[in-house]
Formats: sequence, structure tokens, C-alpha cells
Amino acid sequence: MFEKILIANRGEIAVRIIRACKELNIRTVAVYSEADANSMHVQLADEAVCIGPAPASESYLRIDRIISAAEITDVDAIHPGYGFLSENPHFADVCESCNIRFIGPSAQAMSALEDKAVSRALAKKAGVPVPPGSDGPVETEQEAIEVARRIGYPVMIKAVAGGGGRGMRVAHNDVSLVKGYHTCRTEAEKAFGNSGVYIEKYIENPHHIEFQILADRHGHIIHLGERDCSIQRRNQKLIEETPSPLIETRFKKLREKMGRAAIKIAEAARYTNAGTVEFIVDNQGNFYFLEMNKRIQVEHPVTEEVTGIDLVQQQILLAMGEPLRIKQSDVHIRGHALECRINAEDPFDDFKPSPGRVEMYYQPGGRGVRVDSHVYAGYTIPPYYDSMIAKLITHGRDRSEAISRMIRALGEYYITGIKTTIGLQQAILQDPNFRKGVYDTGFIERLLGRARRELVEERA
Amino acid sequence: MFEKILIANRGEIAVRIIRACKELNIRTVAVYSEADANSMHVQLADEAVCIGPAPASESYLRIDRIISAAEITDVDAIHPGYGFLSENPHFADVCESCNIRFIGPSAQAMSALEDKAVSRALAKKAGVPVPPGSDGPVETEQEAIEVARRIGYPVMIKAVAGGGGRGMRVAHNDVSLVKGYHTCRTEAEKAFGNSGVYIEKYIENPHHIEFQILADRHGHIIHLGERDCSIQRRNQKLIEETPSPLIETRFKKLREKMGRAAIKIAEAARYTNAGTVEFIVDNQGNFYFLEMNKRIQVEHPVTEEVTGIDLVQQQILLAMGEPLRIKQSDVHIRGHALECRINAEDPFDDFKPSPGRVEMYYQPGGRGVRVDSHVYAGYTIPPYYDSMIAKLITHGRDRSEAISRMIRALGEYYITGIKTTIGLQQAILQDPNFRKGVYDTGFIERLLGRARRELVEERA
Repeated sequence: MFEKILIANRGEIAVRIIRACKELNIRTVAVYSEADANSMHVQLADEAVCIGPAPASESYLRIDRIISAAEITDVDAIHPGYGFLSENPHFADVCESCNIRFIGPSAQAMSALEDKAVSRALAKKAGVPVPPGSDGPVETEQEAIEVARRIGYPVMIKAVAGGGGRGMRVAHNDVSLVKGYHTCRTEAEKAFGNSGVYIEKYIENPHHIEFQILADRHGHIIHLGERDCSIQRRNQKLIEETPSPLIETRFKKLREKMGRAAIKIAEAARYTNAGTVEFIVDNQGNFYFLEMNKRIQVEHPVTEEVTGIDLVQQQILLAMGEPLRIKQSDVHIRGHALECRINAEDPFDDFKPSPGRVEMYYQPGGRGVRVDSHVYAGYTIPPYYDSMIAKLITHGRDRSEAISRMIRALGEYYITGIKTTIGLQQAILQDPNFRKGVYDTGFIERLLGRARRELVEERA
Repeated sequence: MFEKILIANRGEIAVRIIRACKELNIRTVAVYSEADANSMHVQLADEAVCIGPAPASESYLRIDRIISAAEITDVDAIHPGYGFLSENPHFADVCESCNIRFIGPSAQAMSALEDKAVSRALAKKAGVPVPPGSDGPVETEQEAIEVARRIGYPVMIKAVAGGGGRGMRVAHNDVSLVKGYHTCRTEAEKAFGNSGVYIEKYIENPHHIEFQILADRHGHIIHLGERDCSIQRRNQKLIEETPSPLIETRFKKLREKMGRAAIKIAEAARYTNAGTVEFIVDNQGNFYFLEMNKRIQVEHPVTEEVTGIDLVQQQILLAMGEPLRIKQSDVHIRGHALECRINAEDPFDDFKPSPGRVEMYYQPGGRGVRVDSHVYAGYTIPPYYDSMIAKLITHGRDRSEAISRMIRALGEYYITGIKTTIGLQQAILQDPNFRKGVYDTGFIERLLGRARRELVEERA
């Protein structure tokens, strides 16, 4: 059993991991940047080590400083959370070579899944559908044009090292393809230090549905059902839910099919620990493998609420080498869960970040409401990091109850001093199409477009 | 369907009821005293009416003002919460005569259960065991002595109009009986306007176990299992849980027996709506009817967590005349739930109330944690009311998980500016006997006695 774990992260996910550790009776070490000295994760951990100033490149991304903190505090393992170093195989390697367990998949599995072109090939080999596209990176303009003509426009140019919605370009014809090809390569080189790009059929406004996986070191892999994450603005998720209304109402058989496909991907990559297999699904119910996320996801709580399984505790147990004690047939989905990511940004001013001091803060509570957050009244949100300040999760007997509960909880969430996404999330939850479960990744753009048009008409 | 409900209460229970209404899409009216203008229940309701100054006798207990507020705001029903007017049959009568539905049992059922001697007789008639004692009020010293000698000392002298632990005296012999008899009558006359007292066998340090009842207006009654409320200080509950460890580990068959007895009591009183039948259980597994609570109880959330049934929503539906849609066989207990009543008082200074301004406030969250509270940083707890400022509820797969989660949640509950019971509750949860589920109503006195002795020894 691990006795002490260092959490190489900040904010709500650091708090989340500390909670899991406390319930397992494991001691915790927080690391923090100078800008985060007042963050709640520092208070809640048993020990805390300052690892440098903001920005993250000087602290949360500094492998040397994190390893030093781990050695000084004599921890058994490091939990990387999400973002920062969570999907960095080199970090995982360094941890293991220092005799500190990395709570996540092996460096090998991470590397195999890191390159998008490679992971696409891996999926194909495992018999899992991928969007039509190039087999591997595209090396020349001419090759790009050939692939695009073969699969038909529109196409997507994607950085092999991209992820989380970054490093992508859509092309509708040869001209925009050539332009996009070069821009994308330059950007990818800059952002990821790898200029490789590949080409895929662009599926407009698909559904984004992902499957949660748990895999032990003894070859057992299960899935915990799906999460529908189609409510996005510019590829950033804003509301997630499980079960997926698309699967529930239109393609009931997809759950089993996609779940099996997700397990095949994990098997092919010799994946261990918790992971997420992302798919896109079109309106005809065709699904395609997109990528595998090799970390705990922001939206993991909705799965926890409906399955009753603590994913972070599972990560810790699996990293200790414990066999998975849950069989696929033990996984039961109870009711429905929704999550709203509460961001400190102004949704009506192009999602501009809104850091600053939180003045009044009343957190929703009561039955079926869960809040994962590090925020309190008097806390100053620093400008250096992700703008997410809380996750509000509701659980109900069915989708309708989970939605009513979310509307009620959003309505009682008082946060003053900063701007938040709460107003937009309230609008989404009131939308008749959302209520019916009819939405895709184009939903928010259409909603905001409608709001803008109404505003223009009003003014005219 | 009710369209609008007035909540004749304050603090956390007013917030709780507003939440239930919002999820049912019912509009809400808050009433508040001048001292409560900044209370969160005022913010969260759709409308709010000030009904006078503190203390409660000038506002929350003023039937005339509450009815005026209800008429001005044109509500369909009034929810009385707990305390204040919640078990006042006259108030229920006035509501109905003004064509406002009272969300609770009928005035008749309340009256029948109000007089402790009458409800004792009612239980006896229904075949439910009651502690040996007088049949009805005791009118003279001589009669008191006769009863006490017949059933054997120690005995308890109880006000027929008492309740919630008030209006009681223990007597160990004829002398203390005569003295207690007169003191109790005088106190009861003063406190309840009714000097009637009766005598019961005193069971030392029993277990306090109660059953939650739901009854519709069509003759259907079910119970939702028990709550163990034995962790008390001076008859005030501090921690409640379900299932009861006593029943689970020693007297498994008691659940069905006591549940059936609870239903019999409710039937005999022609009880409707939600109610609670309180029993005491001795160490041999004998149970005795104590009283029936004719309101929603503070500790109702633990039952909600394990059954998945929203008790306040059920109260509202039942008051509308809806038939109960849950059969006894539909009631399943899932996992284990605990509640800590967080009071603004100093447990290490004789539970002295500690009102004042809440400075820092960080509320626990995460998986399996529920908080019902009206408190936020900057809120000033007025000195006029009950000292309970929050209820912290945890739910787990089993008792051990619920306890670990409660320890973790209490540990992350930061409240500065006032004193709270959190430290005592942490000590209780760490106690080996509590962990084993071995406790009775004498638990806290013994714990505090031990702590005091240790302190004295340390100083010596």
C-alpha cells in the first residue's frame, strides 16, 4: 500500500486527488507555485512544497523540481492529475527511474498513443473504425491533395502531436488544403516540437462520445460506459453527461459495440490504469476512434456518480499493482449524471478569462449535488492557469431529474467578483433541443449565433 | 399541482425545502425575521416577506403574520419545516380554514399524537410495546409513588406535552420522585401550558432508533427503514446514521418488526404525510415506542441517501393528495449514510452557543458528500435561534466507507470566526467503539468524561 502520494497538480483536481487519498488513509504532499500559495489544495494536503513561480513552465512543468519535492518528502508515488505532466512519457520514466510510482499508464503505452497517426494505425489494426484518411503522416503537399481527393472534402489536417482540440485545420478544397497544410505544420512545430501532420475526413458537427476504461497490470480491462461531451465551444467541453442521450434514444446498441471497441484499443496499446477512449459519432450512428486520453479526465465524476466507482481511488489501487476487483458484469449504470464546468470567463465576451478575487461565494448543496472545487470567498483566481474554477455535478433517477437538479443548483450558485459561464450553462439547460437530448458539437455555436442575431434584430 | 409554496421557517431547512420546490418547478415564498434579512433562504426563494423582529415569538411563531404573508403572495400551501409551528395542530387548522394546504399530517392526527399519554395508549392499543408505566397522566403524589413502585425504580417523569428531550426528570427513589413530580409539573405548565405528567420505566443509556414513515390519504403507509440517533448530548442528536449498527450487527430481525410496529402506530393515528416513529431499544433487543414526530426531521437526509427517495418532495406530493407511488417492496437500502449536525457552539465549554460572523468558509465537497446549509463567508449567525448551521452528510458503499468519507469531509470543513462541534465529531468518529458500532445514548457523556479526566490527570 502507498503511504504517501505527491500530487503534481493544482486547483480542483489536486483537491479531488487529496480527497481520494484521505479516504484511503494515504498521506498527501501538495506542490504549488508562488501564485498558488493560497490555493485550497495547499491547505488540504498533509505537506506542501513550493516549486517555483508562475507560469507553469517554471513550476508545474518542471520535472526536476517535482522530483526533488517527491524525494524530500519521501513519497511512494506521484499522481499527475490532468494537463501539465500527466501525459508526458518522459516524466513517467523519470518517476520510475527514481523509484517513485507514476499513477497512470506505462511510459511505453503513453508513447504508443501519443502520436495520433500511430494510434490511428493501432486502432485500425485492432479492427476499430477510424475516419477515412491518410495512413500515417503526410509528407508533401502533393500527398495531402491525393489523400483529400480520395476521401473527399471537407478534410481535417491534424498535428500528430496535437490533442485537446489543438493543432487542427479544416480544408474545403485544394487551395485551403495547401494553405492549411503549411500553417498546421508550422504551428505544430512551434507548439509541440513536431511538425508531423495527417489528414482525416472532416465530419461536421459530430457527437463526441468517450468511454471510460480501467485496466490492471494483469490483463483485465473493463469499460464503465460512455460520457457524451458534445456540448463544446471551440473543442473545449462545457457540459458532459452520462448516459449519452444519442445512444439512449437512437442507437441503444452502440454502447456495447463502442465499449468493446474501447477495450480493444486499450488492449492493443497494452494500456494500464484509467484511460478514456474518445470517439466521434455521426448522425447515422457510425462511430470512429479519435484518440485515447491517458489521464484522469475533467469529466470523470459523471461516471463515478452513475457507477458508484471512485475512479481516482481505482487509479491508485491499479498503480499499486492491485488486480481489478470489478468485473464487466458488476458495472451497473444507475440514473443519470451531468457536469457543468464552471469557468472564470465571460461567455458573452468571447469567453475572455476573468481572473480576480472571489467576493461572495455560496456553493450549491443538497441532494444529488456534488461540487469539486478549490474556491472560497476571498480567494484570488490567478491569471496564469486554466480558467476552470469548479465542477458542478448532479445525479438524478433519470435525465430529466438530473437536469432539473442542475438548473436548481446553477440557480443557487452565487459567485461575485468575477464572471463565470453559469449564465450560458443555464441557457443551454433551458434549451428545448438540449432538453430533448438533441445536440451535437455545433450546439453552442448555433445557440450563441441565435443570441447574437436576436440582439442585432432588437437593436435594429 | 401546487404552483407556489410558502416556507414558514428559516436557515438550512428553509433552503432544503426551496431546493425540493425548485426541482418540482414550484415557486417559493420565504418569510424572515429582521434578524434574518441576510439569510440565504431569503436570497434563494422567488419572493420573500419580512414577518417581524426576532425572537421567534414575534415572527416565526406568529400565525397571523405568516397567514397574512401567505395571502398577500397567494400561495397554495405552507411547508412548516421542523420546530416553530411544524407540530401545531391549531396552525394546521388555520391554514386549512384559509384554504391553504398545510404540508404535514392533519390537525386531528397531530392532536392525537401530541399528548404523550394519549399516544402511549394508542400504541398499546395497536399492540406496539411501550415502556412499563402509568396509563395516562398521574394526578397525585400518591399515584406517582404507586406507579413507580409497581414498575420499579429508576423511573422517568415526563410532561405529556413535552418532546424533543424537554420536560423530563429521572427519579431513583420515592424522595426524588416526589420532588421531581412537582418540579416537572411546574416546568411543564410554564413551558407547554399543560402541567400533565406521566411516569415511565427509565431505561438507562438505551439506543435511540427511529423509523421514517410515508403515508398517503388513500390508506397506504410504508416505512423507509431506520435511523440510529443514539449519539446525543443531553437528548440533542449530534450524529445520525442508517442502517443502525445495532440492528445490523446484533438484531437483524428488529428492522422488520419495528418497521411493522411503526406502520401500526401511523395507522392507529390515521396519520398522513411524512412522519417518524421513535423507539428506544435496550441491550437485549427489546424495543419500546417513545413518540411520533409529526414533521420532517433534521436527520431525514440519511434516509434519502440510502433509499434514493426525496422526502420533502414526497411531503409535497402527499399533501397534494397524490397516492404514494412507492410500494414497501420498492424500498431498497443502498450503502450507508451518516449525518453530522454542525452546530455553532463550543463542545469543550459545555456546548455554549457561539453566534457571530463567519470569516473563512470552505465547504466540503466531492464524491458522496452532501451539505445542507444556509451559511457563507461573511454571514453573521444571529444569536436568537437554534445553533445548527449546517448538516454534513456522507454516503458510502458500507459503514466503513461512509465513516472514512465523513472524517475526510470534517477535516476539510474550514469555518473561522465562530466555534463549532466539528472537533468533537472528529473525536467521536475516531473512537474505536464508535467505529465498531458499539454505542448508546450515554456515549458522548462517557467520551467527554474521559476527556475531562485525562485533562485533570495531565494537570496533576
